Amino acid sequence: MSVDSGASSMSRLLKLAHKFNCFYLSGLKSGECRPFIVEGFQVGLIRPDVMKQLLKYPEVFRVTSGYVELNPAFRDYEERTAKVDYVLRELRSDKAFIALKGWRDECYDVKAEFHTESLLRMDRSATCLFGIRNYGVDINGYVRHPKLGLCIWLQQRSSTKQTWPDKWDNMVGGGLSVGHSILETAHKEAMEEASIPAELLKNLISAGCVSFYFESERGLFPNTEFVFDLELPLEFVPQNADGEVQKFELLTAAQCIERILTPDFKTTSAPVTLDFLIRHGFVSAENEPYYNMIMELLHVPLQTIYSNQRSIKENGQVASYNI
Amino acid sequence: MSVDSGASSMSRLLKLAHKFNCFYLSGLKSGECRPFIVEGFQVGLIRPDVMKQLLKYPEVFRVTSGYVELNPAFRDYEERTAKVDYVLRELRSDKAFIALKGWRDECYDVKAEFHTESLLRMDRSATCLFGIRNYGVDINGYVRHPKLGLCIWLQQRSSTKQTWPDKWDNMVGGGLSVGHSILETAHKEAMEEASIPAELLKNLISAGCVSFYFESERGLFPNTEFVFDLELPLEFVPQNADGEVQKFELLTAAQCIERILTPDFKTTSAPVTLDFLIRHGFVSAENEPYYNMIMELLHVPLQTIYSNQRSIKENGQVASYNI
Repeated sequence: MSVDSGASSMSRLLKLAHKFNCFYLSGLKSGECRPFIVEGFQVGLIRPDVMKQLLKYPEVFRVTSGYVELNPAFRDYEERTAKVDYVLRELRSDKAFIALKGWRDECYDVKAEFHTESLLRMDRSATCLFGIRNYGVDINGYVRHPKLGLCIWLQQRSSTKQTWPDKWDNMVGGGLSVGHSILETAHKEAMEEASIPAELLKNLISAGCVSFYFESERGLFPNTEFVFDLELPLEFVPQNADGEVQKFELLTAAQCIERILTPDFKTTSAPVTLDFLIRHGFVSAENEPYYNMIMELLHVPLQTIYSNQRSIKENGQVASYNI
Repeated sequence: MSVDSGASSMSRLLKLAHKFNCFYLSGLKSGECRPFIVEGFQVGLIRPDVMKQLLKYPEVFRVTSGYVELNPAFRDYEERTAKVDYVLRELRSDKAFIALKGWRDECYDVKAEFHTESLLRMDRSATCLFGIRNYGVDINGYVRHPKLGLCIWLQQRSSTKQTWPDKWDNMVGGGLSVGHSILETAHKEAMEEASIPAELLKNLISAGCVSFYFESERGLFPNTEFVFDLELPLEFVPQNADGEVQKFELLTAAQCIERILTPDFKTTSAPVTLDFLIRHGFVSAENEPYYNMIMELLHVPLQTIYSNQRSIKENGQVASYNI
């Protein structure tokens, strides 16, 4: 008897769950990354290539053997934001990182936990350099087809998008930018990306969230996606309004499973689609031997990874790190 | 600014998620328990009180400072089962453990992972002494009420049940016993516990699974529940057929949230109900500040807790433990 652990004996869906959790399953354990501390709280993880660049800015980043800390002398949210922004703009003009090529002029909050106060804001293109937790919103649009059963609307991303151009993606999705709530972002993206009228958005149902930890050449992605389901009328066809989508396609559940398994699907959107297919019974313990493993890999303990390493701040000094 | 971490500042639902994960969040970290190894695979965790009793049976259990191992000389599934059963029956007549008072004459499989071969079977009352992973099936029965919206059927457990008597519970639930598949167990329990006819069971939808790690005076419960949703006609009323349920009650979603928060609800069934309330939008990021934390606590990484500690078996000897 043997326990399957080699990639060859995995199911295709388990391999996919490993792919979008490549950092959780291997990078994290390599021990190469150091916690990024702001105001005594761990808010990120920093890879060696990024650490090397940050060493050039000792007045902003304190790099020790155990962690990287934002200068605790910075007084407040605005000062922290400005100092980091200055460094990032310089690194961008130095072409130090691929990630910064995609500068967005749109900021993400940097927080210890989702429900806690923001410590600073940072251009969204840069958060992956610091392993800052990212939060997004996704809408699974579907119809109940009289002949084909439950069918799912997917979008193909525009070829001009800075990240994942031309890849297939969920019907609607977007990152949670500074100052926007989850529901507000869902509504805004639904209108901009798919022209879904307010009347239909009344049927939007909150359906949980997925968490995973991906890594690419750009950086680290500890992502949590807040997931919504939206049943649409058979006759409704999504229409893009902001130029970020090249087309929409309605797929059967079986076709959708095949699509997320292709390299043409955006890796970091696959968890949302897979979670939808599981919640609606299309992927189940009957057809997927690694079902419960996959469920765990759709909800990896990001809070534990970061909060276990939370520091204790005493008298303005970082006193200890429990890593 | 501060990160909420004390119990006083938690939401009631986060406190509940901590309650059904009391072992995951504290016991596990105390380091008091030792891995239980069978055929080179970690299949459980053993508390000091259990270890003390097992020391009396050195021909069956090898207790070392790092782990407890079932004698690797036992040849096969039947021999391992018989040797452990002999010890358990003796411990039962010695009244060594509360858990064994509830002897069931019904066995659970002991495996390294859900999809792998069973290494032995063990009376279900005893698995919590060894921290063996438990698998169960739960059905959320609900109706779409024209005035009250989505309503949920709950059962009150019989006062004669060996575990959690009189407590409120999901409409249908049961453990996965040796030789029964998930779907088979769901159908069997639905008929026995709630007299749901085969015709209605055609609407059963697989909807994921929840994993949590609970501890009680009886022992350790690393549980995975395979979850099904079943929409029922308004006029259908569940009727118990096996004497294990004293009554059924139909609750609105708001009442259901309140019910799972009372001490009258079976703690280890609450994750299933909470997951249902989240998937159907009744608990969302709009009304629950710790929403994403709760989602992670409904899917704790049991596979990692156990498989990280898997041993490498070489030449019949346990070669190393990566704990």
